[in-house]
Amino acid sequence: MANSKTSKESKVVMTELVLPNDTNTFGNLMGGRLMYWMDIAAALAAMKHCGAPVVTASVDNISFESPIKLGNVVHIEAKVSRAFNSSMEVHLSVSGEDAIHQYKYKSNEAYYTFVALDPNGKARKVPQLIPETEEEKKLFDGALRRRQLRLILGGKMDPTEASELKALFEKP
Amino acid sequence: MANSKTSKESKVVMTELVLPNDTNTFGNLMGGRLMYWMDIAAALAAMKHCGAPVVTASVDNISFESPIKLGNVVHIEAKVSRAFNSSMEVHLSVSGEDAIHQYKYKSNEAYYTFVALDPNGKARKVPQLIPETEEEKKLFDGALRRRQLRLILGGKMDPTEASELKALFEKP
Amino acid sequence: MANSKTSKESKVVMTELVLPNDTNTFGNLMGGRLMYWMDIAAALAAMKHCGAPVVTASVDNISFESPIKLGNVVHIEAKVSRAFNSSMEVHLSVSGEDAIHQYKYKSNEAYYTFVALDPNGKARKVPQLIPETEEEKKLFDGALRRRQLRLILGGKMDPTEASELKALFEKP
Amino acid sequence: MANSKTSKESKVVMTELVLPNDTNTFGNLMGGRLMYWMDIAAALAAMKHCGAPVVTASVDNISFESPIKLGNVVHIEAKVSRAFNSSMEVHLSVSGEDAIHQYKYKSNEAYYTFVALDPNGKARKVPQLIPETEEEKKLFDGALRRRQLRLILGGKMDPTEASELKALFEKP
Amino acid sequence: MANSKTSKESKVVMTELVLPNDTNTFGNLMGGRLMYWMDIAAALAAMKHCGAPVVTASVDNISFESPIKLGNVVHIEAKVSRAFNSSMEVHLSVSGEDAIHQYKYKSNEAYYTFVALDPNGKARKVPQLIPETEEEKKLFDGALRRRQLRLILGGKMDPTEASELKALFEKP
Amino acid sequence: MANSKTSKESKVVMTELVLPNDTNTFGNLMGGRLMYWMDIAAALAAMKHCGAPVVTASVDNISFESPIKLGNVVHIEAKVSRAFNSSMEVHLSVSGEDAIHQYKYKSNEAYYTFVALDPNGKARKVPQLIPETEEEKKLFDGALRRRQLRLILGGKMDPTEASELKALFEKP
Repeated sequence: MANSKTSKESKVVMTELVLPNDTNTFGNLMGGRLMYWMDIAAALAAMKHCGAPVVTASVDNISFESPIKLGNVVHIEAKVSRAFNSSMEVHLSVSGEDAIHQYKYKSNEAYYTFVALDPNGKARKVPQLIPETEEEKKLFDGALRRRQLRLILGGKMDPTEASELKALFEKP
Repeated sequence: MANSKTSKESKVVMTELVLPNDTNTFGNLMGGRLMYWMDIAAALAAMKHCGAPVVTASVDNISFESPIKLGNVVHIEAKVSRAFNSSMEVHLSVSGEDAIHQYKYKSNEAYYTFVALDPNGKARKVPQLIPETEEEKKLFDGALRRRQLRLILGGKMDPTEASELKALFEKP
Repeated sequence: MANSKTSKESKVVMTELVLPNDTNTFGNLMGGRLMYWMDIAAALAAMKHCGAPVVTASVDNISFESPIKLGNVVHIEAKVSRAFNSSMEVHLSVSGEDAIHQYKYKSNEAYYTFVALDPNGKARKVPQLIPETEEEKKLFDGALRRRQLRLILGGKMDPTEASELKALFEKP
Repeated sequence: MANSKTSKESKVVMTELVLPNDTNTFGNLMGGRLMYWMDIAAALAAMKHCGAPVVTASVDNISFESPIKLGNVVHIEAKVSRAFNSSMEVHLSVSGEDAIHQYKYKSNEAYYTFVALDPNGKARKVPQLIPETEEEKKLFDGALRRRQLRLILGGKMDPTEASELKALFEKP
Repeated sequence: MANSKTSKESKVVMTELVLPNDTNTFGNLMGGRLMYWMDIAAALAAMKHCGAPVVTASVDNISFESPIKLGNVVHIEAKVSRAFNSSMEVHLSVSGEDAIHQYKYKSNEAYYTFVALDPNGKARKVPQLIPETEEEKKLFDGALRRRQLRLILGGKMDPTEASELKALFEKP
Repeated sequence: MANSKTSKESKVVMTELVLPNDTNTFGNLMGGRLMYWMDIAAALAAMKHCGAPVVTASVDNISFESPIKLGNVVHIEAKVSRAFNSSMEVHLSVSGEDAIHQYKYKSNEAYYTFVALDPNGKARKVPQLIPETEEEKKLFDGALRRRQLRLILGGKMDPTEASELKALFEKP
């Protein structure tokens, strides 16, 4: 196993077509169906990074901005944004495309976290993640803050000790 | 349309069986499949509350604790926890059950937010939510704090102005 | 394994949303899709009662009264109504709900019978069923008559010996 | 619309392969999945007979004898057995086949009843059914008795007036 | 294992209903969904011929003539047309049917080729195919020419050595 | 509508995970399921090129070389290789990936042809395709030969007039 890998090496591009059974009564893609596809894309990115089976540990807050319509195309791009000891944060970017009108629009962004498992189902070490581009570096840096938030929301960290997050709430 | 309704009136109980296609290579329910079912259960609870079509606006941080196994049963309970102007926060509680060993275990909790739409797809007012039990009141109170967090994470509120949240990060 | 259990302990509540692929050309839920969901709900109720894997042995006459429409909600409630030596009769009650118009309607009732199996796939004993409410007692009593009918229809009992059923056809 | 048609003209032959998601924990086809396929095969037979859309009105008692295994083939044969005013009874015969061992076995038989609808969703007249072979004549004759049973079970006929059925319960 | 079998013995008839999720934006059956059903029908025909598991080796050029509409019936008929050493060519004939208008139309024809495998996944011998009817004999004879074409297209035969095919391109 | 577009502009990358229901008894991806995904990927590429709805007109000979296993990843890359009057040939390249063993392998290549339709379902003109790279130029040139083969196989061209193809069968 390599000790470190770039973000680019884990990149997964998924393309899906919105079919009738994927839509609500307005003919828009249901949020749950999109989260299902995002989970698979993100898991594949995490597996490419660590070369081991992975399980979804958590999903960060997702906000659905522009609905994707029946017959439109869903583009999902997933890349590992930071690796911790045995877990990996994956950044997802989703856009819709109306191929008839040649119009592409941003739908939403999200972060999924996965844990790598050994054959007995125990957590195992993963390679470090090396960010290269400016955007990758920004995602890498933000990952610490998001991790503190996850720990607080999961009841595993006391908010007063989350120094990175705390700073956000204080006037300069 | 009633001006207010109780939390209980919106309650939805969903039961699903984990089939082979719902599982990862460890024979555990995939996180994405579970989020798909949760989205439908939560949307039904929101529709019962407002009597109008709804769309998923956001999903809060979800942490997957205990995996649910192939052949086990998934129990999802969804109830509106608070109504705002045209949106509703739905609280979801998920547990797994091994019917053979008569063993039921908590899997995870989550909050999904929905917006009610009129026939033209514009947001419309929804009835207020009246919490009755102790647990419903606690969920109702926490909803404000979670909403501030959603607005901050969505870039729609300045953290220094989220007074409710801010208090959490300050030592007494 | 307990020697006897109440009907209530086996209760399963399933909620499904009617999606496009579940409907016929009139936009109504297809009977076969409903019977599929009923089979799973009933199997789960039987498994909760006996704590063992079960297989569908038979389905009694089902009559479909009110069609359930696309976008409506399907409510299925299943409870063991009587246990025999190694088989269990499960009573199912199905209703539809138009969440937009806040209107709930009865769709149909049915009885599914399951056999409990040991790890080698042989039939095994199941706990007795204790009915508690008036309705549960009525279902419990009727189970004998329905069982005679199943045996006759399956060619395993001579109609002239089905004393319970026979009585129904005789003027007082 | 023809005034009458033969049973043979409505014949539908359906062949399906049992895939992982169709099976229970024993690797056998779930009863509910089979009833779903049977419903579609029977509906197609009824549509061929009447040349109009149809809806499932009822399903008679089904008994599942031999389970069909994962990877085996399901053969469903459906034919209208008798036409009434606006409804049609369809006879179904199901067998399994293990193509590797070149072994075919009977699984079960069933009767589904359909109602023909006009474009406004009202029941409409259907052509009479002409049985030709010995087997078709036997199914045609038995249809009256099964119809009395359906009416009694649906609470629409008093058992003491079901003369055809009643005779079965009396010693010669 | 028999040394030879007739074409008729391998015949498989499959009937499917076109549901919403099977269609493109014109409400016509998607080509890919049809090829999926054809693959299963053809595999079953090949398995009936050889009594062993099979894998799809290749699919010949398919041309989609008449689209099959939502709510219409798909009829697929598959029969082994010729057996080679360890492979079998299966001929498929597909038609659509509008049951309401009692109108049946040819959709397309195709040839799928399968290889029989032993329990270790190695190719194994299959029985010879005996064509009986005029049409079966014509399909049997054409199989050699189609096989040369497959080998050329797969880069496994030099076109100048495909004597059967070459003749087609030469003026008499 | 642009008069011409590059091949690159139509590129679609699809990534899928092989789930239990996609596999045959050897745990390998079924050919029919793969052809279903390929059809969607190719249709999306064709729609991106012409900005109009498309229907599958034909699929060229596909040969399945390396089976893709359960739990592996399927990579499909589709690009328009040549445009004719109202039809487009799409080149597809499929590979499998075992993410655990970090091993990627070529599975197969194919050509699907689509026709662009106007709102009345009639064929309409499409932009010309401009190949840029060496590989794109080779695919562009070969398209004429493959088209002749399609016309001959579809009975719409006399082999003796297919000068491009004919040359292949003649010794230099």
